[in-house]
Amino acid sequence: MKTIYINATFFTMDKENRIFSNGMMIVQNRSIIYIGERNEELLADADQVVDLIGKWVMPGLVNTHSHILMTLLRGIGDDMLLKPWLETKIWPIEKQFTSEIASVSAQLGILEMLKSGTTTFSDMFNPNGIDPNVVMETIAETGIRGAFSYSIFSFGTEQEQKMNLIGAEQFSKDYKNFADGRLTTMVAPHSPYACSPEALIESARIAKENDLMIHIHVSETDYEILDIETRYGNRPVEHLRKLGIFDQLTVMAHGVVLNDEERAILKQYDVRVAHNPISNLKLGSGIADVVGLLDAGIKVGIATDSTASNNNLDMFEEVRTAALLQKGIYKDATKFSAQTALTLATRGGAEVIRMGHTGSLEVNKKADFITIYPYNKEHLQPITAAYSHLLYSARGSDVCDVYIDGKTIVKDGKCLSIDEEKVIYESNRLLNNLTTN
Amino acid sequence: MKTIYINATFFTMDKENRIFSNGMMIVQNRSIIYIGERNEELLADADQVVDLIGKWVMPGLVNTHSHILMTLLRGIGDDMLLKPWLETKIWPIEKQFTSEIASVSAQLGILEMLKSGTTTFSDMFNPNGIDPNVVMETIAETGIRGAFSYSIFSFGTEQEQKMNLIGAEQFSKDYKNFADGRLTTMVAPHSPYACSPEALIESARIAKENDLMIHIHVSETDYEILDIETRYGNRPVEHLRKLGIFDQLTVMAHGVVLNDEERAILKQYDVRVAHNPISNLKLGSGIADVVGLLDAGIKVGIATDSTASNNNLDMFEEVRTAALLQKGIYKDATKFSAQTALTLATRGGAEVIRMGHTGSLEVNKKADFITIYPYNKEHLQPITAAYSHLLYSARGSDVCDVYIDGKTIVKDGKCLSIDEEKVIYESNRLLNNLTTN
Ligand SMILES: [Zn+2]
Ligand SMILES: [Zn+2]
Repeated sequence: MKTIYINATFFTMDKENRIFSNGMMIVQNRSIIYIGERNEELLADADQVVDLIGKWVMPGLVNTHSHILMTLLRGIGDDMLLKPWLETKIWPIEKQFTSEIASVSAQLGILEMLKSGTTTFSDMFNPNGIDPNVVMETIAETGIRGAFSYSIFSFGTEQEQKMNLIGAEQFSKDYKNFADGRLTTMVAPHSPYACSPEALIESARIAKENDLMIHIHVSETDYEILDIETRYGNRPVEHLRKLGIFDQLTVMAHGVVLNDEERAILKQYDVRVAHNPISNLKLGSGIADVVGLLDAGIKVGIATDSTASNNNLDMFEEVRTAALLQKGIYKDATKFSAQTALTLATRGGAEVIRMGHTGSLEVNKKADFITIYPYNKEHLQPITAAYSHLLYSARGSDVCDVYIDGKTIVKDGKCLSIDEEKVIYESNRLLNNLTTN
Repeated sequence: MKTIYINATFFTMDKENRIFSNGMMIVQNRSIIYIGERNEELLADADQVVDLIGKWVMPGLVNTHSHILMTLLRGIGDDMLLKPWLETKIWPIEKQFTSEIASVSAQLGILEMLKSGTTTFSDMFNPNGIDPNVVMETIAETGIRGAFSYSIFSFGTEQEQKMNLIGAEQFSKDYKNFADGRLTTMVAPHSPYACSPEALIESARIAKENDLMIHIHVSETDYEILDIETRYGNRPVEHLRKLGIFDQLTVMAHGVVLNDEERAILKQYDVRVAHNPISNLKLGSGIADVVGLLDAGIKVGIATDSTASNNNLDMFEEVRTAALLQKGIYKDATKFSAQTALTLATRGGAEVIRMGHTGSLEVNKKADFITIYPYNKEHLQPITAAYSHLLYSARGSDVCDVYIDGKTIVKDGKCLSIDEEKVIYESNRLLNNLTTN
């Protein structure tokens, strides 16, 4: 079955950054088999033709670090310092979590991601009190692509820590290739401060034996650097390197506090960084030097972190903020161009999480794409500067349709794979049953 | 005629930050005459009852610095340094401006402002090639509230400079009380670098004789500081103080580069600051120390600047960015709370531009308010944390209805005062006729 999409401007986000203004794309078996200018000969061979009525088409956005099971915690405890926020707000609520709460949270988060143009995500979840199978089945049904990681913590009794590691290993095997290959796993030791050296070593072993990436929070705050240095005599990057974490392909969230030596280590081990600009600002962590990372040859993706520290999952806003911040801190408007930014939010982000089969509109890539209908949107006028508007003016609510694996997931702003009304109703009902102080 | 609004949560943004969750508001003669919890006795006396079906209601947002006549330039010349951007992109296009282009630009900008919840704005325009009367009539028809300022520049021949000053004085008198008092003027010497000392002295005279505020760009970049110091022996703030600018009530846009001494001068003269966080980042100017300004007792408003350096006019995004940046640069999540931020975007901003008759939902204030229907918006769930969502998650496209002077200007996301389709069509037609390289 060949579906041909016509009458659109295709922003491919490929290496040459090609744009086809009277473009055409052919999708077969979930993959792109043609992308280019309109071709009447090929068009004659279509099984189905979709007229995109002049829309803009771009690859679905890639969110390289999130915590969708926390979506229900949106707006709880803003404007607080990290420690009291976690200890008095987030953790007491997470302790009350059930599979039902986790599933509804996941649906709410994914609903927001999908409707705002994110087609691929990499998430880390706290398994406390939940049955991962219930959550994975829920996620599979939404149609999203991504990696889901079971957090490893060194909290609680020795037995609890052991069970946590066993659970994480089992999970990462069981769901490595799930939902027609759309979902996979990573191994997620939470952070150098929440994991013992033993747990980190064990995480590296699990990743190695199962050929999985490691997903970990690193170098988020000044306090973390001081804490790890005090406890282990090394800063986080060197601490993790010594424990063998970086011998596995790793994506680290944050990387706010890094020096040149550490950037060199990240480059050497091909450690990738998931940059969470809004979360880093909101929690008072600071501003990561993304230009410095890119200049050092390190792969960077853009990410939202959770709704508890963002508080939305709009990747258009996130990547815009990323670009603006670098210009601001470097006091140089030429830094981090629209092309760099949009690449990091699409193809670059996909490469960061080892999902090079998505993230751009190219032959043999998965048909993961989104559309925007600009003609009735005043903030996207004049339309000639479309590419600029995608970075500097668009917002998640501009997304019209979302396709993943060639399947229509969002149509005219309505999500087809999730019962929106029910999820919103259940989110409020479940939150109101929780004790939030 | 008493119109009573019921079944809504009213976020008053008054000094006590009162919120009425089963609230009621009565509007008569364009003003609020009651705001509080629902009162059946008062309700019985209504001429008209509007059921807001559970919406959130807040004061319209106040954009304290914009250039709506530049809206057509959105997306032209991103990622460029200020000087080549102005010289090779913006100015060559502005030279081709006509009253028609200016009017359509104004409509496009105001359309975006209104639909994203801005009810009051303070703008500075370049009068080159346009008939201000045409533009003012156009703005009046949109129903927006605000101040419009005719820029004073010391460019061109002596005769041209004289005509520019005469034009500015005439304009500021003619439209001081326009469109039922919704529109007024300020005196706008563009900046210390674009105005001669004589033009600045003359600006102060015009402001004084007509009891008008001064609206000026000050301390935007490091380069400006150096430039003014080199030319006049003083930094911009002291330069302007000496010339008597601050003897008139002044709102200065930017204030990115200020020292303690300068903050003390601003406080002493009650000079207010329009903070443009996104424009300051995008042009590589830096990040203003807003916490420092507020701590020094200086009034601050939030602003978008033009679409050429932003590139949208979404005040929700702007105020969120303002709050996030201060937390980030201070590395302290408790700085610039949601309440502070939302106050600056509403009541505080209105005070900055001497429009204390709007900006909050209080008795005797103008009925300028906006509504958001949260129940079908996944990014505003769970709804219990509504106040947090207004700052940290909402976006312009969430705005449902907009009222100014008690009149419905936007209804269910559709602007009633502007022909949206026509403005968008004309914007593209006119831009395509311009030479943009
Ligand atoms: Zn995280
Ligand atoms: Zn300006």
